[in-house]
Amino acid sequence: MIIVIQCTDQVGLVASITAVLAKAQLNIVSMREHVDEANNRFFMRLEITHTGDGTFIEEQLRDVLHADADIHINPLPNKEVVVLVTKEYHCLADILIRNFYGTLGATVKAVIGNHDVLADICRRFEIPFYYLSHDLGSKQEFEEKILSVIGKYAPDYIILAKFMRILSAGFVSRFPMRVINIHHSFLPAFIGANPYKQAYERGVKLIGATAHFVSNELDEGPIIAQQIIPVNHSYSAADMMKAGREIETAVLANALKLVFEDRVFVYANKTVVFD
Amino acid sequence: MIIVIQCTDQVGLVASITAVLAKAQLNIVSMREHVDEANNRFFMRLEITHTGDGTFIEEQLRDVLHADADIHINPLPNKEVVVLVTKEYHCLADILIRNFYGTLGATVKAVIGNHDVLADICRRFEIPFYYLSHDLGSKQEFEEKILSVIGKYAPDYIILAKFMRILSAGFVSRFPMRVINIHHSFLPAFIGANPYKQAYERGVKLIGATAHFVSNELDEGPIIAQQIIPVNHSYSAADMMKAGREIETAVLANALKLVFEDRVFVYANKTVVFD
Amino acid sequence: MIIVIQCTDQVGLVASITAVLAKAQLNIVSMREHVDEANNRFFMRLEITHTGDGTFIEEQLRDVLHADADIHINPLPNKEVVVLVTKEYHCLADILIRNFYGTLGATVKAVIGNHDVLADICRRFEIPFYYLSHDLGSKQEFEEKILSVIGKYAPDYIILAKFMRILSAGFVSRFPMRVINIHHSFLPAFIGANPYKQAYERGVKLIGATAHFVSNELDEGPIIAQQIIPVNHSYSAADMMKAGREIETAVLANALKLVFEDRVFVYANKTVVFD
Amino acid sequence: MIIVIQCTDQVGLVASITAVLAKAQLNIVSMREHVDEANNRFFMRLEITHTGDGTFIEEQLRDVLHADADIHINPLPNKEVVVLVTKEYHCLADILIRNFYGTLGATVKAVIGNHDVLADICRRFEIPFYYLSHDLGSKQEFEEKILSVIGKYAPDYIILAKFMRILSAGFVSRFPMRVINIHHSFLPAFIGANPYKQAYERGVKLIGATAHFVSNELDEGPIIAQQIIPVNHSYSAADMMKAGREIETAVLANALKLVFEDRVFVYANKTVVFD
Repeated sequence: MIIVIQCTDQVGLVASITAVLAKAQLNIVSMREHVDEANNRFFMRLEITHTGDGTFIEEQLRDVLHADADIHINPLPNKEVVVLVTKEYHCLADILIRNFYGTLGATVKAVIGNHDVLADICRRFEIPFYYLSHDLGSKQEFEEKILSVIGKYAPDYIILAKFMRILSAGFVSRFPMRVINIHHSFLPAFIGANPYKQAYERGVKLIGATAHFVSNELDEGPIIAQQIIPVNHSYSAADMMKAGREIETAVLANALKLVFEDRVFVYANKTVVFD
Repeated sequence: MIIVIQCTDQVGLVASITAVLAKAQLNIVSMREHVDEANNRFFMRLEITHTGDGTFIEEQLRDVLHADADIHINPLPNKEVVVLVTKEYHCLADILIRNFYGTLGATVKAVIGNHDVLADICRRFEIPFYYLSHDLGSKQEFEEKILSVIGKYAPDYIILAKFMRILSAGFVSRFPMRVINIHHSFLPAFIGANPYKQAYERGVKLIGATAHFVSNELDEGPIIAQQIIPVNHSYSAADMMKAGREIETAVLANALKLVFEDRVFVYANKTVVFD
Repeated sequence: MIIVIQCTDQVGLVASITAVLAKAQLNIVSMREHVDEANNRFFMRLEITHTGDGTFIEEQLRDVLHADADIHINPLPNKEVVVLVTKEYHCLADILIRNFYGTLGATVKAVIGNHDVLADICRRFEIPFYYLSHDLGSKQEFEEKILSVIGKYAPDYIILAKFMRILSAGFVSRFPMRVINIHHSFLPAFIGANPYKQAYERGVKLIGATAHFVSNELDEGPIIAQQIIPVNHSYSAADMMKAGREIETAVLANALKLVFEDRVFVYANKTVVFD
Repeated sequence: MIIVIQCTDQVGLVASITAVLAKAQLNIVSMREHVDEANNRFFMRLEITHTGDGTFIEEQLRDVLHADADIHINPLPNKEVVVLVTKEYHCLADILIRNFYGTLGATVKAVIGNHDVLADICRRFEIPFYYLSHDLGSKQEFEEKILSVIGKYAPDYIILAKFMRILSAGFVSRFPMRVINIHHSFLPAFIGANPYKQAYERGVKLIGATAHFVSNELDEGPIIAQQIIPVNHSYSAADMMKAGREIETAVLANALKLVFEDRVFVYANKTVVFD
């Protein structure tokens, strides 16, 4: 059983929480806690050996914690996700493979593409693919169609796996901290379009990728994971893009693993990650 | 104040420990714990805001923990060390610089060299240097001279900063888990002499360095930190050695920081590192 | 057009080779050369703008080079490979995805498994899968069946993508420097079986993966690429294995890319890699 | 002998250059070349076995190359440098240590500080230290004093080793591509002041350092080397700064090595680095 807690910090919190578990004779397999002193905020993740439904423990924890405490007991063992894509295959294929072999930590319910080139790979893994062109109406209509598909599946998370359209603030605000994007640069460098071209022109010696939750500001949401690879003068912008795909795939996979295992907390536009 | 605890695991340990702190109205700034399930062993490191001497807390913790519990309260804020060297300057100079600027986390009391080439740098930083040649008698006599110097300073740790002689089991057993060595390879690859030559001949694409506690077996003690850098076909064995020096320096500095901040626990010839 | 040359070193080699190209008004897009001074061996890789068949240039190069020079002009633009697997999917799936999208740099002609669990993923990508159990006869009979399948396809390279059987010296010697293996450790550490268990027991802080050509000695062939990831005390042997799969996949993909682009030369049981 | 050439690209350049060497019976130990196709620019670095003064070869190369070719034969084997600092010791101390042991690849002639706290370490290594406060007059007067000290030594390069003042365009333009700065972020992220605070507030998971030539635009000059280290939620801005110092030291040391070995070419505000 996994227990995640986020609340205002105070003296004695850990003692209160662990006393509840000790009284119930529950063994702590793994415990991580963090106090954000600047914000007086407390974060904790516990893995315990109990396999029951946890209602009893949740009630007891609520008794000893502030009313404002955010407690999740035994979060869904298997999240459900919908993936949005455009044309690039690398992140989607990686997700589909892990989904197929049961190692994603979540179930892919559907894929939505604003182009249809990735329909084939979805079909091969028997995942529903929805081709919703962004060209057949207003942005609002486009997003409404997406919402309608998402509505069918009520996923826990929406993954932007190289989805190259910017979603409106209205769209994003419906899924707070539930939309995960892979951005093809080491944010906050090269915000916005064509980061590899920007990186090439600046002559950088490293390129990066950033997985983050999507908030209203473009590329400004809380960062979950980042990674880089070295490049050099022999890389064209296209070579950088090609090399970048490898880390985009790896960073997104890593971020999803962290989120699906309830290791990521969000506060003050930042993440606490118990990896 | 830092509290480190190592003991047999049991249900309720964290609750018991944190209840002591809560009762004393002490705030936990940082807490890390680990259970080695294979060995049923519990490890914890706490940073709390208390600045007193901690005797009171130690007594209370001893009341709630097993008699066999290994508890250190408020470990020496500033360890004292003696450094053993041969001819290579890079690790020693890095240590002396950090020592000079108060960022080592320990105080260098003396340096012992089996050659005298590093006397000059020690003199520049007003650190006593003892030249004890390994050539002027038996190995036993050599080690007795070293012990005699070490005896003067009673250091917390002995650092082998590219000391190229093998210390006897008898010597090492006097300082269990208190002798720290930097080995110039990614252990357990290339155990023993001339690892860069071995690495060159094997045609590896990465070379590494390993900081570890010294136990009786050559290069077999608990590993504290490891790091690698890429190499390629254009590196001669000498080039690998030169490149290796950079990570030897970095890995040893990192390992010392971890040890001096009481972040390293040893059990079953392995380390638990709360970095 | 790509030109790769390996021969005994001598003064004036580069001048002779580039004079041939200059005379033919061919532009050098990229040139890499290396001299192994210990072995007096010269290696060169050229990319030139010419798109013809290269016979003319090869003849002219043979005129100016030693008779023993190993020259390949315009190597097969698309290698053909057969992949051998056991049960683990991660390397195979990555290869099949790249193959499907035309980014592998080679064509997968068939997959051979000594278990049948990976038949499904091959079927989904319409790649022939041969299930050849190692249990139905002697090792020699097993290898003869494999050879018979390989014989059908006459591949340029045989990829051991987590194939967990050791091939005999007789088998390997039929495909010198054409069998590529991914070994699940940072060679030469943890040679042989169960390297993650060995790594766990040794308490290492990094785990690695090594892609290498297979020679007669177990895990002793020329290394093409290596990579590591950090681990810590919280990793069980199973966790290390799981983490290791990510870099096994990445290292094998990288090594294959290098080999398929004719960037890897072998000499004296080492590789020269012009990456 | 090292030969570096930068010029307009054309067919046959390599053949012409290497023919000169072959005719003189000179053996090429190492050759690297790059063509920037977008800018039609050719870069080459050669190490040859010749130990003479190279005048003869330079003349012959000038005969076969364009008049506009930038050729340096046998560049100064030991560059001379002046280092500018403020209060932080880490980069300066590393440079002084390497200088002391003859492994910097250059000679430190003097250190200039706008504070005097680093005078002590310079004195210990017998390096002249000039304390020139930025507070005792206008910026122009401050820079004139610096220029006056630099004028005494006529160094090949000026190293800004955590010099926290911005030099005027007029100052910088006197030393084109001869002023090297270490910037405490992964440029172009966090340009300007207090990058660690910016990084902390953005919640990044990696922090970096960038060594670059200084041009007129703040933090916009050609990048020589970059490196990163992982950070997490437990790092305060101060912790990030502390961790950052380790890579600042390493990146600057690496960049200096590359520059002093004539491995760095500048063109179009980017570098070609033959590492």
